Amino acid sequence: MPDELDEIIKALAHPLRREILQWLKEPERNFPDQEHPLSIGVCAGQIDQRAGFSQSTVSAHLATLQRAGLVTSRKVGQWHFFKRNEDTIQTFLQRLQQEL
Amino acid sequence: MPDELDEIIKALAHPLRREILQWLKEPERNFPDQEHPLSIGVCAGQIDQRAGFSQSTVSAHLATLQRAGLVTSRKVGQWHFFKRNEDTIQTFLQRLQQEL
Repeated sequence: MPDELDEIIKALAHPLRREILQWLKEPERNFPDQEHPLSIGVCAGQIDQRAGFSQSTVSAHLATLQRAGLVTSRKVGQWHFFKRNEDTIQTFLQRLQQEL
Repeated sequence: MPDELDEIIKALAHPLRREILQWLKEPERNFPDQEHPLSIGVCAGQIDQRAGFSQSTVSAHLATLQRAGLVTSRKVGQWHFFKRNEDTIQTFLQRLQQEL
């Protein structure tokens, strides 16, 4: 996955995107106010709020994470919910370990 | 090291820079034609040749790797020799594992 690897590394080259991935690791702790069940993911609006940036800024970062396969998203009604993609993250870490 | 981390990730976000790091892992195998002893590092000219790109292109990539702390360089006469910086590479991999 040379191309995928590039895309993932680029996606990680921004502190906010790495922070979002960390927040999504512990949704109960980081997004206790979400009304929808956290099992479907964390709502984009909750992530905007926690980041303290505009919806469009955070939305662009989430799209980058999703293109790289680091998060998955699910649309329910008008809302978008995000989850970490543990498979991709773990495969990436192993690949990087080998490649470096 | 949030800033160092960013700089390292950006440095790794280019396939040639990752390839150079891999080549430097096995200098004897990848640069058998170097006349200077490989113990002082691999000469920039050898890396240019193997990469098949111009001296200025490769030199810019080597500078990026060096700024990020992923390689160290030593000047002997008119030549620049490069080595992997294993400490930084291993610390980075551990940090990323924790941060992701």
